Amino acid sequence: MQSKSTDKSADMPVTLTEQFLRGNLFAEACPSREVLKHVTSRWGVLVLVALLTGTHRFSDLRRKIGGVSEKMLAQTLQWLETDGFVLRVSYPVIPPRVEYSLTPLGNEVGLLVRDLADWIEVKLPAILQARTEKSDALQTVPGVVTHRLR
Amino acid sequence: MQSKSTDKSADMPVTLTEQFLRGNLFAEACPSREVLKHVTSRWGVLVLVALLTGTHRFSDLRRKIGGVSEKMLAQTLQWLETDGFVLRVSYPVIPPRVEYSLTPLGNEVGLLVRDLADWIEVKLPAILQARTEKSDALQTVPGVVTHRLR
Repeated sequence: MQSKSTDKSADMPVTLTEQFLRGNLFAEACPSREVLKHVTSRWGVLVLVALLTGTHRFSDLRRKIGGVSEKMLAQTLQWLETDGFVLRVSYPVIPPRVEYSLTPLGNEVGLLVRDLADWIEVKLPAILQARTEKSDALQTVPGVVTHRLR
Repeated sequence: MQSKSTDKSADMPVTLTEQFLRGNLFAEACPSREVLKHVTSRWGVLVLVALLTGTHRFSDLRRKIGGVSEKMLAQTLQWLETDGFVLRVSYPVIPPRVEYSLTPLGNEVGLLVRDLADWIEVKLPAILQARTEKSDALQTVPGVVTHRLR
């Protein structure tokens, strides 16, 4: 059971100074929420993971990331560029050439996002298995877990 | 530069068997995309991080996670339950009591998500600084980086 008074748990900042300097994702108005949205958006994750392997042109990224539209890829790159994670360099040549790479900050967050992406890929069979077991269980187990209140 | 033939880079599965057993987030039709969506949704991240500290009732989670609506919290918990990350136990008492906790699989993914959430909270000042520098740079640096093609 959690109450309001125990919200500042071990992994949260304790002093007022720490609270001030550090973001707090549990607070609705904290700008960290926007950063989280950018790096964990479906395309944000895949762009970061793709760029970990090196500099890419727009068309390379688009080919690599199945299903992304030109518009969504451009939007995602712009978000990540604004947050300081992606460096965009446009060369004044003909035909025009624009290259995207990770900044040091982007590399840090990219590695964390890749850990998560790798875990999901590796554990997918277990997750799909859990889904099957759950749907079986719902049909056979009586009582406590089957009555859905919410 | 990436081409289709180099898409299977070092961190991707190499053999056909590995390819088959493991998810591939870069493939549009892979079910791993849906799992990624669940765990990295704004509320998915916060629910997983909150549940790492222990079992919660619905109302505890709602109080802890600023700004979440009842509907979105219920939807998020249901996604995570279906993927096998969250265990939902409903006690047949009056008033009704429903408790949520992480499964072992949910604990694993929760720790990875918390690493990412912690990083964002700690690095928020650097990210906000990068944003400021970027908006300053756009107003002063001529040539290559200011001409936006996409």
